[in-house]
Amino acid sequence: MSIEQRIRDLGIDLPPATAPWANYANAVRTGDLLFISGKGPTPVNERPPKGRLGAEFSVEDGYRLARSAGLDLLAVIRTELGSLDRVAKVVEIQGFVNATPEFEEHPQVLDGCSDLLVEVFGDRGIHARSVFGATSLRAGFPVILKGVVEVSA
Amino acid sequence: MSIEQRIRDLGIDLPPATAPWANYANAVRTGDLLFISGKGPTPVNERPPKGRLGAEFSVEDGYRLARSAGLDLLAVIRTELGSLDRVAKVVEIQGFVNATPEFEEHPQVLDGCSDLLVEVFGDRGIHARSVFGATSLRAGFPVILKGVVEVSA
Amino acid sequence: MSIEQRIRDLGIDLPPATAPWANYANAVRTGDLLFISGKGPTPVNERPPKGRLGAEFSVEDGYRLARSAGLDLLAVIRTELGSLDRVAKVVEIQGFVNATPEFEEHPQVLDGCSDLLVEVFGDRGIHARSVFGATSLRAGFPVILKGVVEVSA
Repeated sequence: MSIEQRIRDLGIDLPPATAPWANYANAVRTGDLLFISGKGPTPVNERPPKGRLGAEFSVEDGYRLARSAGLDLLAVIRTELGSLDRVAKVVEIQGFVNATPEFEEHPQVLDGCSDLLVEVFGDRGIHARSVFGATSLRAGFPVILKGVVEVSA
Repeated sequence: MSIEQRIRDLGIDLPPATAPWANYANAVRTGDLLFISGKGPTPVNERPPKGRLGAEFSVEDGYRLARSAGLDLLAVIRTELGSLDRVAKVVEIQGFVNATPEFEEHPQVLDGCSDLLVEVFGDRGIHARSVFGATSLRAGFPVILKGVVEVSA
Repeated sequence: MSIEQRIRDLGIDLPPATAPWANYANAVRTGDLLFISGKGPTPVNERPPKGRLGAEFSVEDGYRLARSAGLDLLAVIRTELGSLDRVAKVVEIQGFVNATPEFEEHPQVLDGCSDLLVEVFGDRGIHARSVFGATSLRAGFPVILKGVVEVSA
């Protein structure tokens, strides 16, 4: 089954990719690799989410926020490549979690994106990943994700 | 116009690349990609800048500091490749900003590097990027940048 | 001399690679590049190390902890490729150091991994690298490392 078909079957309605915030691109391709800029969760009721894991947001919130940021990564990939079917595999995801010094559950947050990628891409969505607590993020975002995917020829 | 000609026309005088701090290289090439180590801003009056965004440094300071670190990235690229004209494109920049928990203007800081890259490389300088607040950086540096560029054959 | 022979001569006994914590892989290969997930130091007396550089851990502790995490990176590489002899070169290492805001000696911590890689791989182990202070890491880990290596055909 095609990825675009699967994402429809899953009932996932990708928003348009958000614009870059400044003098850079959402993604740059080199050879078969597409490097994707850092993306945050999309606004809820027009308000961009703001706050830290371990304070304003719970682990469950974080999971949803990472899934939301993951949807923006998918939207960027579709915009850049024309179709998600052109993804040969997801190579790497890195997660920045706006977190308190005491926070320890970064993986459970990043799972929101990882689970999304495996739902959508199946085995091709199983990626290398890393995550850490940032002391602050742009606009107070709770989560930012960046990634690298391999494009099929 | 060649990039080396353009950088002269812009009046940018690249300092020599700073040395790695330990048992590693300023850059490593694999295939057409050059991975560049983290670089900080160069000293002012022989004093390396030290402090955090949101405390000792303003956003305007941060912009200049990111531009300074970007100049060191360019110096590394020139040293590794012999000429900036061998850069096919800038693929990715990641910025670490030494910041307070309240700081929210990381993109405006990183713009100092992004604007430099687009001045120097034009369309070839439009990169993917990400940025986050670090709780501390080596030697108290306010900004560290790393990057990946594609080399023309 | 082969790398596998050298690592035996050095008396380094690699532990089995630790398992991914969730819905992702220890490493993903794309072309000649192997992207490796973030890895922390292995447990001491069955207790995973927990704490921050600049507080619970000294720089000397950090050096040992980064070496320990580097051993897990090596274990992942061996598991993925079958043999460390298939590493053409180490391309990049990124270190996340769980650190206080005052901590400034991140390079000396990361050296624990860098020195290990050069011991094991010689010139092929000289990598690009970057390091920053994270405000928190999963499970309170003091250090997490991720990397990219080039695989020989």
